[in-house]
Amino acid sequence: MRDAFHDDLDATRITLVEMCKLVGNAMDRATTALLTADLKLAEEVISDDAKIDALHHDLDARILNLMARQQPVAGDLRTLVTSIRMSADLERMGDLAHHVAKVARMRYPATAVPSELALTMQEMGNVAKRIIEKTSGVIQSHDLTAAMQLEKDDDEMDRLHRKLFTTLLDDSWPHGIETAIDMTLLGRYYERCADHAVSVARRVYFLVTGEYASDQA
Amino acid sequence: MRDAFHDDLDATRITLVEMCKLVGNAMDRATTALLTADLKLAEEVISDDAKIDALHHDLDARILNLMARQQPVAGDLRTLVTSIRMSADLERMGDLAHHVAKVARMRYPATAVPSELALTMQEMGNVAKRIIEKTSGVIQSHDLTAAMQLEKDDDEMDRLHRKLFTTLLDDSWPHGIETAIDMTLLGRYYERCADHAVSVARRVYFLVTGEYASDQA
Repeated sequence: MRDAFHDDLDATRITLVEMCKLVGNAMDRATTALLTADLKLAEEVISDDAKIDALHHDLDARILNLMARQQPVAGDLRTLVTSIRMSADLERMGDLAHHVAKVARMRYPATAVPSELALTMQEMGNVAKRIIEKTSGVIQSHDLTAAMQLEKDDDEMDRLHRKLFTTLLDDSWPHGIETAIDMTLLGRYYERCADHAVSVARRVYFLVTGEYASDQA
Repeated sequence: MRDAFHDDLDATRITLVEMCKLVGNAMDRATTALLTADLKLAEEVISDDAKIDALHHDLDARILNLMARQQPVAGDLRTLVTSIRMSADLERMGDLAHHVAKVARMRYPATAVPSELALTMQEMGNVAKRIIEKTSGVIQSHDLTAAMQLEKDDDEMDRLHRKLFTTLLDDSWPHGIETAIDMTLLGRYYERCADHAVSVARRVYFLVTGEYASDQA
């Protein structure tokens, strides 16, 4: 009976990794759609978000069911409660990819991002992709050193976010208010996505140690 | 033993209501600080956020402890899992009040919000305050009709959010990019706060019925 339960716990972890893969893929395609004004790709990201939502709901139901049937304690209980939180983070990260794709769709056939900011936005997309891949690795490995190192990628995202604002606030910014609003929101979507990824990694720290990572970071 | 457990469940609910009160109060004071350039008040909101974070962490620890000791099933298990999620929403709403206060502090001694948008921002603050109060009521009453009616307040927030963008995008907008960025972020903070409040109310629906509210809304 305990073995079947631990198979179920493993399946939970595999679903979280699957969610990471879908979210990373969504954010990557959303960035491409944004920078190349690819309407078809943007629409795909928007409609594919339902798959992430479905995985999230299905995983939550499975976890509640496991809790009720198996009455886990200690580490197993912590694993399940933490998985519910990670699932919520990943679902939200999917929403943020969806938001990026919606900006691409809203500005089509124009490209939403002006040339001055294309590289910064591409870099934000790259950091988001990298941080999601690393998060997936941390969920699989439970490597606490790797979990804490995600903060460095988040620092890189914060640096790019500040760079974005510097460009927007330059006196020579020629693109007006509407584009500034789009860029402000896009910057926020990427930054929040990275924050949630860091949050998932910190939850792995809690799952393994039973302590919150906030004081150690 | 079961009676003590149900006292603990009641205490969980009381803590969630207490968190609502602190969050509503924080958002209300943040709005006042923002519109009156009150640095002292902004600083208070910023430092008080630690109280909400502490309640959140303490509540989560108590819930995990209850799960481990009492091995709840069915409705009691759902109550505890849902309370963990509500606690996370409320903690995030506190962060958003903190973000609003930080904009007030950043622009001091100037008033961050230009006169054209003062009323809209005040209304967004009012809707946030009202929706948080109603959320608190729903947590106490488990009134599902009231839970679903929160969507209407959220619609009002969305209307104000659109009005904000209309003002920003008017050709006569005289305040430049920096203020537009501030207003875009502030609008997002208020809107996200309302979204989280709606999410808390939907979680009460799940807690009571075991079904997700999304299809009924």
